[in-house]
Amino acid sequence: MHTDASREEIDRAAEAAWSTFSSYGKLSLRDRASLLRTIAQELEANSEELLKTATGETSLPQPRLQNELNRTLFQLRSYADAGERGEWLDLRIDTALPQRNPPRPDLRKMQIPLGPVVVFGASNFPFAYSTAGGDTATALMAGCPVIVKAHPAHAATSELAAAAISRAVRQRGLPDGVFAHLHGSSFESGRQLVTHPCIKAVGFTGSYAGGKALFDAANLRKDPIPVFAEMGSINPVFLLPHKLRESCAQTALLYAGSITLSVGQFCTNPGLLVGLDGEDLNGFIRELGEQIRHIAPGRMLHAGIAQAYRDKRSLALSQESVETVAVSAEPPREGEGIPTIASATAKAFLNNPILHQEVFGPYSLVIRCADMSEMLSVARRIEGQLTATLMATEADVQEQPDLMMALQEICGRMILNGVPTGVEVCLSMHHGGPFPATTDSRFTSVGADAIRRFARPMAFQNWPDILLPEELKDANPLRMWRTVNNLLTQEPAQRPNSA
Amino acid sequence: MHTDASREEIDRAAEAAWSTFSSYGKLSLRDRASLLRTIAQELEANSEELLKTATGETSLPQPRLQNELNRTLFQLRSYADAGERGEWLDLRIDTALPQRNPPRPDLRKMQIPLGPVVVFGASNFPFAYSTAGGDTATALMAGCPVIVKAHPAHAATSELAAAAISRAVRQRGLPDGVFAHLHGSSFESGRQLVTHPCIKAVGFTGSYAGGKALFDAANLRKDPIPVFAEMGSINPVFLLPHKLRESCAQTALLYAGSITLSVGQFCTNPGLLVGLDGEDLNGFIRELGEQIRHIAPGRMLHAGIAQAYRDKRSLALSQESVETVAVSAEPPREGEGIPTIASATAKAFLNNPILHQEVFGPYSLVIRCADMSEMLSVARRIEGQLTATLMATEADVQEQPDLMMALQEICGRMILNGVPTGVEVCLSMHHGGPFPATTDSRFTSVGADAIRRFARPMAFQNWPDILLPEELKDANPLRMWRTVNNLLTQEPAQRPNSA
Repeated sequence: MHTDASREEIDRAAEAAWSTFSSYGKLSLRDRASLLRTIAQELEANSEELLKTATGETSLPQPRLQNELNRTLFQLRSYADAGERGEWLDLRIDTALPQRNPPRPDLRKMQIPLGPVVVFGASNFPFAYSTAGGDTATALMAGCPVIVKAHPAHAATSELAAAAISRAVRQRGLPDGVFAHLHGSSFESGRQLVTHPCIKAVGFTGSYAGGKALFDAANLRKDPIPVFAEMGSINPVFLLPHKLRESCAQTALLYAGSITLSVGQFCTNPGLLVGLDGEDLNGFIRELGEQIRHIAPGRMLHAGIAQAYRDKRSLALSQESVETVAVSAEPPREGEGIPTIASATAKAFLNNPILHQEVFGPYSLVIRCADMSEMLSVARRIEGQLTATLMATEADVQEQPDLMMALQEICGRMILNGVPTGVEVCLSMHHGGPFPATTDSRFTSVGADAIRRFARPMAFQNWPDILLPEELKDANPLRMWRTVNNLLTQEPAQRPNSA
Repeated sequence: MHTDASREEIDRAAEAAWSTFSSYGKLSLRDRASLLRTIAQELEANSEELLKTATGETSLPQPRLQNELNRTLFQLRSYADAGERGEWLDLRIDTALPQRNPPRPDLRKMQIPLGPVVVFGASNFPFAYSTAGGDTATALMAGCPVIVKAHPAHAATSELAAAAISRAVRQRGLPDGVFAHLHGSSFESGRQLVTHPCIKAVGFTGSYAGGKALFDAANLRKDPIPVFAEMGSINPVFLLPHKLRESCAQTALLYAGSITLSVGQFCTNPGLLVGLDGEDLNGFIRELGEQIRHIAPGRMLHAGIAQAYRDKRSLALSQESVETVAVSAEPPREGEGIPTIASATAKAFLNNPILHQEVFGPYSLVIRCADMSEMLSVARRIEGQLTATLMATEADVQEQPDLMMALQEICGRMILNGVPTGVEVCLSMHHGGPFPATTDSRFTSVGADAIRRFARPMAFQNWPDILLPEELKDANPLRMWRTVNNLLTQEPAQRPNSA
């Protein structure tokens, strides 16, 4: 339906992005923020058509898509606000010390944009983590032109979102090269983009195989570039004994909802529940199974994802010593994912890497540990994750410092007595985690700190005020927070007398 | 003289670092800062022996070594101060919104340490960028245990510095695993360290070949880890026409000093001077040549570096259309580097990649450009650099916006009317730059922001005050700057009533 971009079209887009960068990268924060807000307006004005098209392409229900579109608008607007406030610029000024021996020169530092960014959107988030999603918004706010490669699973929705962005670019009087939108169903087109000399960073949300291949291609460039790939997570939940005794039924209810939310198609879906074998865990499993049997299968994003769920679920359930605890009482139709809970011993988990793999869909595996030391071994064996969750009382936490440390090691966000699904868009969010959850645990893809992914520091030594960027001028005309001679302040910087 | 560590010793050191990490990573900022200050004390108390040993090993003159040792002490103390102040922690708090639909959970975020770090010191800085240098200081401040692989060119000095660090570790009552020191002359021992599962980040200062090999090895791990390698730079200087007319002799004098400072053995040595062909540039070259002829050859760090200088200098001077402008009037003795200025046309430079290579030593190549457009082509063809310098009047800068942009693209620090040598230790310093100057342009290796290299964010969702780290507690007991509900403040955070 949509024609794949040719090699020449990819070249032209990358070169246009690069030649636009010299002007767009110098655009004021206010003007970049205005672009983000105008994109939000254009999406909002076109929301009916966007929702209709996305409903047709993705099998996601309308309320979920409406929520996601609202989230997308909120992201654009809140990243515009935070971006304009400028804390992400890490402004530092050390004024000259002409009397020192040797004299200290005036030094000032701020974040500058990396250059053109390629964004690969997520299959499971046609709005919030695709064409006009978080990667595009933060790259544009950082001062980087963006090229989006549309996800083939929602290419028409992507076209509409791209058209809204292009209208916003023109409305703000900016050159077309600020944003481009390409189709490409082959890995080769992605690789061409990532290895193009005009491209300076990459945002990706998707599978481990896809993200890792792009990461490797970027590292093999003559000049390696950063790839921010979010690649999947099983989001382990540790059920500690006091808490489980206290609120077994309530926890089961909470988790039945989280495991099946949006047919389990969230990157923060809890795919592993770890508890101490015994009466309380049995009660929890019984209750969770009861809930799951009452939850109907749901239509998955597209046929490929439904097939992958069937295959991975079958593989997991067929492993030695894995027991199927409960499945939905209603049989699934074509393209649906069936809610499923399985269980296995910690020993089986520790010895079988297949049980560590994500089963993307409404599935969770309960691990029965013989004792706390086995639970600690399980925690230490789990690979990098976006989140780790503790269902625990204060006493549980204080009795298990080693478990706390082990969980901190493997994740980017630790949740206490809650569920990992539901990723709040705010500055304190960290949506990222150690490899293989992401390729770079030091950066988030949600919240305004995600702007930092697309910037690097630049120091200006001995520049007169008139030639410095606004953000670093003595008078602090933008009233930003800056660290001046080691003190955080919004006051002007005072240069020593030239005498 | 020093025995290379065996595979088993490397394993043991990495495992000891990892098992120490669980306690050291939780040590308070105050206690980590005390460790850095105690290391400084121990080095200072032992300075006589350190200087004597380093003088014997490196051929660096005593005053230069004394300066470098002072710089090392200043780094440890100023990084302790900045580290304890805690701005690098990027503290963010978003308090719960229980009335919102859906309710927003309490979210708090801070930087946590990455884990054990391996440091490969620099041959040209036995103190400040080696065993007790910037990488070690910032990794320890971040909460990471450190393993240093001693540079074979100053292994005895490294032993002494390591002993001082170990004494400080014991004085502060910390376990031995916080710091380890190993010898290894083969690349294999370096690779074993970098690919060890217990190692989580790497600091390196040295050659492109060495840094790139470690970077590649780290990226091929099952879990890739960050490598911060600083790998060399020719630090181009652009001589703009108004400025050259104004102060030709003064500029020549300044640069004769910078090119030959410490026998040209600084990573920020200006190896390329770019000007507009004509009378002013001829005058500058004449004057620079005159100065260079009067500067005596100097003993280089060790025989290998002196040999490499001879080879690379000969290779550069033998290139077609490269003219030798001036050499020191005094012939060099064994192991000395002879001050040398050569020149070539921009056309020759643009067509010959050999002229883009660093000649580590007191050497600089002057490029004659036919016009400003050729100068711009030169700027755009240069690879990533630590610094770029402009000798320019205000008018020069304002007349050449494209050149400004091109230079910003290729460097991490832009100097106006100064020299790139002399890297100030302060928060505004950025010592880093696009590949191949470093492997990660987003981080500095000088100044307290270098602590950030060894940390990653962690979000805590829905944790009660009593279980949170000090830095994130409601009352803000450490009086740190934190962004609370999007406002930067030192005030306590207020949780909403639980009602």
